[in-house]
Amino acid sequence: MTRGFAAEEFRARVARAQARMDKAGLGALLLTTEPDVRYFTGYLTRFWESPCRAWYLVVPVSGEPIAVIPSIGAALMGETWISDIRTWPAPDPEDDGVSLLAEALGEVGGPVGLPSHQGKALRMPLNDLEAVKAQSGLAFTDDRGIVAGLRAVKSEAEIAKIAQACAIAGRAFDRVHEIAAPGVVLSRVFRDFQRLLLEEGADWVPYLAGGAGPEGYADVISPASDARLERGDVLMLDTGAVWDGYFCDYDRNFAIGEASEAQRAAHARLIEATQAGLEAARPGARACDVWRAMADVVGGGEEAGRLGHGLGMQLTEGLSVSAKDQTVLEPGMVITLEPGVELRPGKIMVHEEDIVITSNVPKPLSPWAGLDLPVI
Amino acid sequence: MTRGFAAEEFRARVARAQARMDKAGLGALLLTTEPDVRYFTGYLTRFWESPCRAWYLVVPVSGEPIAVIPSIGAALMGETWISDIRTWPAPDPEDDGVSLLAEALGEVGGPVGLPSHQGKALRMPLNDLEAVKAQSGLAFTDDRGIVAGLRAVKSEAEIAKIAQACAIAGRAFDRVHEIAAPGVVLSRVFRDFQRLLLEEGADWVPYLAGGAGPEGYADVISPASDARLERGDVLMLDTGAVWDGYFCDYDRNFAIGEASEAQRAAHARLIEATQAGLEAARPGARACDVWRAMADVVGGGEEAGRLGHGLGMQLTEGLSVSAKDQTVLEPGMVITLEPGVELRPGKIMVHEEDIVITSNVPKPLSPWAGLDLPVI
Repeated sequence: MTRGFAAEEFRARVARAQARMDKAGLGALLLTTEPDVRYFTGYLTRFWESPCRAWYLVVPVSGEPIAVIPSIGAALMGETWISDIRTWPAPDPEDDGVSLLAEALGEVGGPVGLPSHQGKALRMPLNDLEAVKAQSGLAFTDDRGIVAGLRAVKSEAEIAKIAQACAIAGRAFDRVHEIAAPGVVLSRVFRDFQRLLLEEGADWVPYLAGGAGPEGYADVISPASDARLERGDVLMLDTGAVWDGYFCDYDRNFAIGEASEAQRAAHARLIEATQAGLEAARPGARACDVWRAMADVVGGGEEAGRLGHGLGMQLTEGLSVSAKDQTVLEPGMVITLEPGVELRPGKIMVHEEDIVITSNVPKPLSPWAGLDLPVI
Repeated sequence: MTRGFAAEEFRARVARAQARMDKAGLGALLLTTEPDVRYFTGYLTRFWESPCRAWYLVVPVSGEPIAVIPSIGAALMGETWISDIRTWPAPDPEDDGVSLLAEALGEVGGPVGLPSHQGKALRMPLNDLEAVKAQSGLAFTDDRGIVAGLRAVKSEAEIAKIAQACAIAGRAFDRVHEIAAPGVVLSRVFRDFQRLLLEEGADWVPYLAGGAGPEGYADVISPASDARLERGDVLMLDTGAVWDGYFCDYDRNFAIGEASEAQRAAHARLIEATQAGLEAARPGARACDVWRAMADVVGGGEEAGRLGHGLGMQLTEGLSVSAKDQTVLEPGMVITLEPGVELRPGKIMVHEEDIVITSNVPKPLSPWAGLDLPVI
């Protein structure tokens, strides 16, 4: 499978953004985060892990994007389709790209749309944003959700990358019996599962959570403890593994040694709920309709919380499968279905799959789990 | 080795922050990023990988911190020493914690110090920040570098965790001969090296970069290509592996099959430069003095760029070992020494080690490399 995208795909993304910018009356977009910059450029590096350098992309309402970046990134950005690359020797305590960015924005003109809404961080110092505003003299506003809206609907090439990440995780999940057994420390299972993901082809493993216990686990976000797995536990592993910059995000539950009736019943109900979510996830339905279909199976009102979310260049992005999210589904959207049930107060089981919305029945991207809780 | 920290350590961190806040006239700190929140709470989860939920910590000038967080984190935050935990069912498209945060800040009073300077991002939507400002009616300002200043000087317990991460990476580097040889694809080497880090005890591997070629590599930030290693290449692997939330960040170079004279000479010069940096890194010296000592060995003026940086809960944090950084070194600061040399225009070799500043000679935390370029 080929890495990267054709330059035409990036040009099409920019053209779609520009059409929406024109309609919204924006002169430029200013992007500061890894996925937003990568979406329009293809610039892929794990160097964003270092917070000491800011990276900027200016997308004008017409013409090509301008990358305003630390000189350490010049060579790698030069390999993308972007031709207007302006660099400074960062980090510079006196002027860390502020003048260069203000100048680029000044050439392009405003108003400047900066993603400022839910799910969007500002990956630059606030002081520098204020300085850029002052130096450029331009008006700044939210990007009106333009970038998030574009990113929510994936191309075939993007979907193929997510499917690849899902397939890799599927092969790793098939090997959990190699690493999990009564007596094994949970932190060891977590380390080994990341190893399996890498062996099966993941580029890297930004996310792994999970838990274990006879009546489920406390949450789905905790790091591994040094507790030992015991016969009768249910073990859950939930991973975000990456292939070529695209995530999978799904989990699997395993009964250790033997499965209790309560565990089996909970698992079957989770799979039924996921199936109900799949059937509801048609174009034109809203995110809250998919939530309703799953909540009806697992029970619970709004407190059932978020039962899935958008997925792509980030582990979670865009819509929430929740009672309040009115986002209308469109073909090309990739979402997770993630119902949960409570086995006793404070102990839960959760199941998760990844799907892509099509013009008809959604297509599962993760290998669909059966009703039976696997025993290992 | 024990995970986490004693509650007394967190209390001491808060007390130090409060003394500085009092002096700076701040009523509260508002923290939004993973390391800043974790520094005062001990809240450790990989769930920050999901950008859809904001997390807030309010540190008042007197009294205990207040965590204002999504309800999904209540159980895990409840395991920390923090007792004032306020939650909302996030993400909420109507009010995503804004009222709850404004109320908490209102109780505490301003001015509110929000880290706004170099190296600091805002991990919350800008729109929500504006709403919190308006609802609370408080004045907001930079935190005056208080949090970064505290985090720069590590406790013994923190240094031990960084040393543990360094030791893990050292064992993995000792095994590179198992995974790298002529004909092996570079992306396979990268995957396998992450596996080695996990096998040797890393909790996870947030960062890996590197490169290979007969005359070095183009940069130190690129992801792996699918090019094959060839006899005569020099291979560099640079990793940020994590143990209990603390990073190592150093690299190693390996000659594949045989080493050229130019490679050997470059490597020896890099080690000499690192040694010069080590000798210069005494308390009272400035970051730029350490830079000067290394730049004198590898040659080059300011364009030699950044030759190291602070290290801790982030892969890079705080000071830059650069010509312009006047930060004065203090015992307890952990920094990297990272000189580079150009073998020909556009091709470099880089070496990196991690050290902690003491009252006398700095202590290496990474296993110190010898002059000879290892051949594998």
